[in-house]
Amino acid sequence: MRHEIAPRSGAGFELKAGETLTVYDPRGEQVADLLAYNLADPAEVISSGRTLDYASRIYLTTGDPLYSNRSKVMLEILDDTVGRHDFLLTPCSKDTFRIIYGDTDPHRGCFGNLAAALAPWGIHPDAIPTAFNCFMNVAVDGATGAISVDPPRSRAGDRIAFVAKMDLIIGLTACSALQSNNGSFKPIEYEITL
Amino acid sequence: MRHEIAPRSGAGFELKAGETLTVYDPRGEQVADLLAYNLADPAEVISSGRTLDYASRIYLTTGDPLYSNRSKVMLEILDDTVGRHDFLLTPCSKDTFRIIYGDTDPHRGCFGNLAAALAPWGIHPDAIPTAFNCFMNVAVDGATGAISVDPPRSRAGDRIAFVAKMDLIIGLTACSALQSNNGSFKPIEYEITL
Repeated sequence: MRHEIAPRSGAGFELKAGETLTVYDPRGEQVADLLAYNLADPAEVISSGRTLDYASRIYLTTGDPLYSNRSKVMLEILDDTVGRHDFLLTPCSKDTFRIIYGDTDPHRGCFGNLAAALAPWGIHPDAIPTAFNCFMNVAVDGATGAISVDPPRSRAGDRIAFVAKMDLIIGLTACSALQSNNGSFKPIEYEITL
Repeated sequence: MRHEIAPRSGAGFELKAGETLTVYDPRGEQVADLLAYNLADPAEVISSGRTLDYASRIYLTTGDPLYSNRSKVMLEILDDTVGRHDFLLTPCSKDTFRIIYGDTDPHRGCFGNLAAALAPWGIHPDAIPTAFNCFMNVAVDGATGAISVDPPRSRAGDRIAFVAKMDLIIGLTACSALQSNNGSFKPIEYEITL
């Protein structure tokens, strides 16, 4: 059964070891921020710095494990029809919109949506790290280090699938930042299978 | 007064708002991992993802602010004679040495040194995020995303200085990973001035 995450919103759910989470971009060019916490001990959380270090790559795809802050594998990418995702940047937030976009009455962003979605498991907003940003297309200029947030490469129906390597709490959004989604806010869909 | 951090070790200390911390590489090609926590509330911690997002750059230097997970400025880079530092990778650890180097009896690394140095302030190892790695030279291939850990560009006597924008707990190391320091372990020095 596919679940829809409405534009600019988020969802929280449990994913048991061995289950597969497939994230779909139903309309194309829409980012989904993904967070993972150990269900048995949510102080263990997905870690960009551990994962990129062990992969020796900033772009991850099929076959790559996603590590926790304790260097344990939380998820492994099982399938990926896009091949470009971001693991450098934190979820967009009120502060993102204030600092980068200059908004005076900013949306709560993926950060606020994730905080609300994860609250039932007692996860504090301070414990929201850099997310694995499905379909987000962040280019890095190797010479200058400049980052550019480009339109996602995902087309309608594209997907990325992850198999859980431990029992997890997942936070997932339909991203709320204009630049990340090529100027429009669309839904995200996800499915959990055995 | 200059303090020395012995090779493959770490230090923890307080840095008050307005004080300047200067980190020196006395022999050259030696990395120092730096962490910062809000002294008044250590759940507020330095954030790579926030900082890189707001800077739109992965390489930071003089004038760049370092943000917390609450999007507050913790430190600002005041002076930098090197211009190449890393903010992508987590501190080296037993797991780094096991996973990347295949060590069977691994050193506790910067992670273990930081955990021990920060324990007096009640900071748990799980709360150690991606560090600001002074003098660490991590190149990114923009096309493939491949990361390479290259010899530091720092020469003997090079330095980077930070001014504190809030009262902080600082963790600082002389990095323990062979590859990061071009194959040898050297000391780091630091100084706190008003």
